[in-house]
Amino acid sequence: MSLLVQKYGGTSVGTPERIKAVAERVKKSVDSGNQVVVVVSAMSGETNRLITLASDISQKPKPREMDVLVSTGEQVTIALLCMALSEIGQDARSYTGAQAGIRTDKSHNKARITDINTERVLADLNAGRVVVIAGFQGINDDGDVTTLGRGGSDTSAVAMAAALKADECQIYTDVDGVYTTDPRVVPNARKLDKITFEEMLEMASLGSKVLQIRAVEFAGKYNVTLRVLSSFEDGEGTLITTDDEENPLEQALISGIAFNRDEAQITVIGVPDTPGIAHSIVGPVADANVEVDMIVQNISGDKVTDFTFTVNRIDYDQTCEIVEQLAQDLGAANMSGRTDIAKVSVVGVGMRSHAGIASKMFGCLAKEAINILMISTSEIKISVLIDEKYLELAVRTLHETFELSDRRGEPAPE
Amino acid sequence: MSLLVQKYGGTSVGTPERIKAVAERVKKSVDSGNQVVVVVSAMSGETNRLITLASDISQKPKPREMDVLVSTGEQVTIALLCMALSEIGQDARSYTGAQAGIRTDKSHNKARITDINTERVLADLNAGRVVVIAGFQGINDDGDVTTLGRGGSDTSAVAMAAALKADECQIYTDVDGVYTTDPRVVPNARKLDKITFEEMLEMASLGSKVLQIRAVEFAGKYNVTLRVLSSFEDGEGTLITTDDEENPLEQALISGIAFNRDEAQITVIGVPDTPGIAHSIVGPVADANVEVDMIVQNISGDKVTDFTFTVNRIDYDQTCEIVEQLAQDLGAANMSGRTDIAKVSVVGVGMRSHAGIASKMFGCLAKEAINILMISTSEIKISVLIDEKYLELAVRTLHETFELSDRRGEPAPE
Repeated sequence: MSLLVQKYGGTSVGTPERIKAVAERVKKSVDSGNQVVVVVSAMSGETNRLITLASDISQKPKPREMDVLVSTGEQVTIALLCMALSEIGQDARSYTGAQAGIRTDKSHNKARITDINTERVLADLNAGRVVVIAGFQGINDDGDVTTLGRGGSDTSAVAMAAALKADECQIYTDVDGVYTTDPRVVPNARKLDKITFEEMLEMASLGSKVLQIRAVEFAGKYNVTLRVLSSFEDGEGTLITTDDEENPLEQALISGIAFNRDEAQITVIGVPDTPGIAHSIVGPVADANVEVDMIVQNISGDKVTDFTFTVNRIDYDQTCEIVEQLAQDLGAANMSGRTDIAKVSVVGVGMRSHAGIASKMFGCLAKEAINILMISTSEIKISVLIDEKYLELAVRTLHETFELSDRRGEPAPE
Repeated sequence: MSLLVQKYGGTSVGTPERIKAVAERVKKSVDSGNQVVVVVSAMSGETNRLITLASDISQKPKPREMDVLVSTGEQVTIALLCMALSEIGQDARSYTGAQAGIRTDKSHNKARITDINTERVLADLNAGRVVVIAGFQGINDDGDVTTLGRGGSDTSAVAMAAALKADECQIYTDVDGVYTTDPRVVPNARKLDKITFEEMLEMASLGSKVLQIRAVEFAGKYNVTLRVLSSFEDGEGTLITTDDEENPLEQALISGIAFNRDEAQITVIGVPDTPGIAHSIVGPVADANVEVDMIVQNISGDKVTDFTFTVNRIDYDQTCEIVEQLAQDLGAANMSGRTDIAKVSVVGVGMRSHAGIASKMFGCLAKEAINILMISTSEIKISVLIDEKYLELAVRTLHETFELSDRRGEPAPE
């Protein structure tokens, strides 16, 4: 008997009919001899409906009250799914985040899970019940409802899988797996059967929106076997697992081309090149709960340097305010920023042992006359910042260059 | 400084605009030097929306899951009202029933409040905050969400007022007070300035739907001063208070004509007339959480008797099932029942010291040729069961006979 945690997103539970279909799918897993914990999102559209109600009342609602408001979305889904399960003869019980023992820190709207008390959930599983848990939410030490931020239901599922030592955490979504890049940009993008946590992490953080990045981090950290699959059609999906050096997952150097339009770039110009300068810029930004993505600092001759970083576009205005003040305090010459940029990355564990990937990437972009604004690299990815208008062109040409396309769809050679 | 508990129903918080208006009203109370606890219902339409979602999935959803589902309605309102209060500079904090310390028994959908821990609420009041509490809901000893049944927000408000020893519990609604009867049936029904708890209890239980009966019981029991008033216009509303013999509230014999269409009648025919027979019929019905209203048993000559009682119409089918089995077990001859009936009552503390009210009532109905199916009396009310089709006629003629009309609207005598 395996213990599975299954997560169904907003589209998968978007209507009563779809909730019934999810119930059937869950029951099939139980009938195959598994114990099943289900984590659900709000019905698609519901969170936006609630946010609209709030914005009709206040332009800047208190984070605590936003959490009280939007957490009702998942609560509706857990009740409805339990009803659908009962209806087909499967005993089930719903839990809000708080009831499921999901404790978080106090950071409203962006809380992090600190601890999970699985006692009640385990008791129900052992009594033969399916447990249905509201994703995206928890409770803090004050007894207040918190939310993990949008998309946080994935994190709830993985954290619950880790706490329960589940055999597999299955993320059901509206796509049938992880692709080499977004099929809306490159129609013959190929579905990957397997991918490593590290690659998935780079893919997710760079904008392949199949999985929330924090969920993948969590899964990697606690060794939770993760699988992304479709809630609308049968299939094996994509398995996300550790990189086993004995049995390399795939021969490919590169697993995929990721991209992200939601970036904004900020540069502090002519900042004194002294130790601790990076921290004194990034620290206050992080303290404001803004996630910094790329960071580049160039060597400079004249005891001053330029410090550039990127943040999510929605955090751009807030970050500019913070940095303007910082620039003044640090005696920087100036600051600049722009939002009409995009990030493109090639990702793959294979590049570790192969030189020349960067050169191939830059050459390919140069051939199309796409200017590179900023470069950042890690062990398994190379990211470049470019003008947003060149994004699709860059993704398509890189996908072609690294031979990632699915050839099955093409006519057989005569 | 007074401590007020204000309750706003679904119509009063039906749109973001109305929620803002409630916030203004609350702030005005605070600015007048009061501490204010607000209890709210779900936005009008919301509970029905949720119930429809459930019925799309299951014809008989589990009570536990219904509570998880519908309790989200009030949770949405508390968050939105707190946002509206913050927006106009009034610090406020929302609490679900569970967070407000409202503990109930385990009877899902029809739970009763057992205890309120006011610690967190008092701390917030003392810190100068308005506390906004989700009505209609609580938490049981298993940590599960419970609801008090429809309209239960009134009970939440009164229970909270009792626990906090509030100076007044103000029930804001879409009418401006308690009337001598339903103005939709008798257009010149008169608003009462004051009414006793006992009268209000009889009025409420008999179908004047301004206040939930349990709320009035609670208020009477714990001596909570209650006031019904309009959330749309200013005014003093109707004060509901104890009957002070020194200062009689009003001179009138009769305060109002109440009525109820939601009744169904069940008779057990030819049941052996032995001690304990009433309990052996009513007991199992009550055990099924069905509320029994009128009970009549007639003296019978032949060691058998007919036992008749009424229940809410929605409980009719369930009750019939129970009673059919009982009738068999008790050796009764038969059972019968009907749902096309209505109850009309005259209510007033004044009748205690005056004879002839019953005679006047029966005479008035006889004059209109309305047949009386069943009679039941208490110290301060006389109720009759009649054919539903005569209901409006009976109410109008009784209202006239007991001179309850508001004469102000009539043309002055020439």
